[in-house]
Amino acid sequence: MNLDQRRTKSLVSFFLHTFIAIFAIGTCSIATAADPLASWNEGPARKAILEFVTAVTDKNGKDYVAPAERIATFDNDGTLWVEYPMYTQVLFAFERVKELAPQHPEWKTKQPFKALLEGDMKTVGASGMKGLMEIVLATHSGMTATEFAQEAGDWLRDTQHPKFKRPYVEAIYQPQLELLDYLRANGFKTFIVSGGGIAFMRPITQEAYGIPPEQVVGSSVVSEFQVKDGKPVLVRMPKIDFINDKAGKPVGIYEHIGGQPILAFGNSDSDMQMIEYTMGGEGRRLGLFVHHTDAEREFAYDRKSHVGTLDKALDQAAANGWVIVDMKKDWKAVFPAR
Amino acid sequence: MNLDQRRTKSLVSFFLHTFIAIFAIGTCSIATAADPLASWNEGPARKAILEFVTAVTDKNGKDYVAPAERIATFDNDGTLWVEYPMYTQVLFAFERVKELAPQHPEWKTKQPFKALLEGDMKTVGASGMKGLMEIVLATHSGMTATEFAQEAGDWLRDTQHPKFKRPYVEAIYQPQLELLDYLRANGFKTFIVSGGGIAFMRPITQEAYGIPPEQVVGSSVVSEFQVKDGKPVLVRMPKIDFINDKAGKPVGIYEHIGGQPILAFGNSDSDMQMIEYTMGGEGRRLGLFVHHTDAEREFAYDRKSHVGTLDKALDQAAANGWVIVDMKKDWKAVFPAR
Repeated sequence: MNLDQRRTKSLVSFFLHTFIAIFAIGTCSIATAADPLASWNEGPARKAILEFVTAVTDKNGKDYVAPAERIATFDNDGTLWVEYPMYTQVLFAFERVKELAPQHPEWKTKQPFKALLEGDMKTVGASGMKGLMEIVLATHSGMTATEFAQEAGDWLRDTQHPKFKRPYVEAIYQPQLELLDYLRANGFKTFIVSGGGIAFMRPITQEAYGIPPEQVVGSSVVSEFQVKDGKPVLVRMPKIDFINDKAGKPVGIYEHIGGQPILAFGNSDSDMQMIEYTMGGEGRRLGLFVHHTDAEREFAYDRKSHVGTLDKALDQAAANGWVIVDMKKDWKAVFPAR
Repeated sequence: MNLDQRRTKSLVSFFLHTFIAIFAIGTCSIATAADPLASWNEGPARKAILEFVTAVTDKNGKDYVAPAERIATFDNDGTLWVEYPMYTQVLFAFERVKELAPQHPEWKTKQPFKALLEGDMKTVGASGMKGLMEIVLATHSGMTATEFAQEAGDWLRDTQHPKFKRPYVEAIYQPQLELLDYLRANGFKTFIVSGGGIAFMRPITQEAYGIPPEQVVGSSVVSEFQVKDGKPVLVRMPKIDFINDKAGKPVGIYEHIGGQPILAFGNSDSDMQMIEYTMGGEGRRLGLFVHHTDAEREFAYDRKSHVGTLDKALDQAAANGWVIVDMKKDWKAVFPAR
């Protein structure tokens, strides 16, 4: 071989090996890839998800959706984390009242704080949504954004769910973690769209779900820019800014995301408008509800429940093409292994 | 060579070539990479940007910032696109009044609509912020979210800036496009944080700046979820929801992004609170203002201007370590080549 021939041979060899290397890496990752939805049992829910994702990512298919428009929105309470027997954020607010009580002597005589401090939950319950809002506002305002994020994050990491003996930040559903990963691996952007407080969830959504703070939509209090001791801060005010629930969910989606989701996942009648809005767009769409049917591994509740009421959505699911995910039947595991 | 030796040799060769291939690709891209800030002249602004990005991305340096916290926020009017001699969105509103006039016979006798339709801009101006808000609300509400996005996007693509003879969507600053790309290439997330309407900007931010709709923060009107002719839609209401300007900018950042930016770029006194909030965080930060000093290639205006007033920020820049970007001196080109 002369020099040119050697160079050519060397180049051919180089490209061949590079090609093989790339091909091998590609093949390996496909051949050895575990089932992306390993905790989803075979059944109509798993099938609907796989078919939907395959359809919208097939460049040559009629249902193809460009990556920028692959928006998936998930409710949080009861859809990504446990909400039963009481919404996590309400428990947080109740515990904060006890912690803050020494600084609020007036609570000893003011309802519903008095009842809460005395453990009289019947009176707290009787104070209704108005009483609950007072408790939430009193415990979620008056501090800076940074202070509240620290409090909420610490509490979610340090407080255990009584039934599952794991911190709230880990009382989250393994099949949904797999679904979020699977969607992102297929070019989706994943968002939380929850009735819960945006600032309550954000401190842990990245570590829990792989969802960054800016992809979390939720209810909020008014905040104010102030300079405190020479330091510019945001102070949380005792006033509701926005309730991101029911018909508020599509509004929150418009405000925060701009685009219309092509997949939405909820678990209660409060998610119906989000699912309707999602399904109402052009092209192929997927709307799903978690149905809590598993009294043993988690909880069983639906139509008559005081949290996560799932009633009208159950009735309307079949007619609207909504997928009802039966926790007991469809989920092989409920929580991540510890 | 026996079989094992051949296998070993083959494997070594395989890995060696693969390594060379990867190394070659890496080296090529570094060796041939053009200056990422090609339209920025040598000078203090360019130097400050390069030093800042190098510092916060150096894993072994004291100023290192994890990618998740590399948040950069940019004002839009006068910072990313032209705002002179009149904010683009105000021009859009004025033109919409003329288009919509046939459907609003009452405007013939109602100020400031009457004056606007008669071309009496002095009276329009005298109606002040209140009059302007009436015009904006009348032209930005009453339609669905999808309809408004179509109108705004079409107008921005089809309407020419009178001085630059290019559509508004291209009356954007080349050095800033390079900076946005450079930041993203260094793991930053780039956001728009503008006093302008969130729904007015979003239809074009991806094509103009590579910024997706969910990374745009702006002022908004109230919207409502409705079902119209069996179709779920969001309807824009004639009521201001939020003004994302001045002290509203840090609030908008908290609400939409959650985290505190480490770099913020504005051009007027209305951006001071955003820059203060950014600079007030822990660790290394960078705050910048475009100073419009280029009457020939763009416009020259600052302290006395009716749009994009830059006055207090100029006075306070040196003491606060804010970088003033002198358009005439610091920018080699102003607009993208067409």
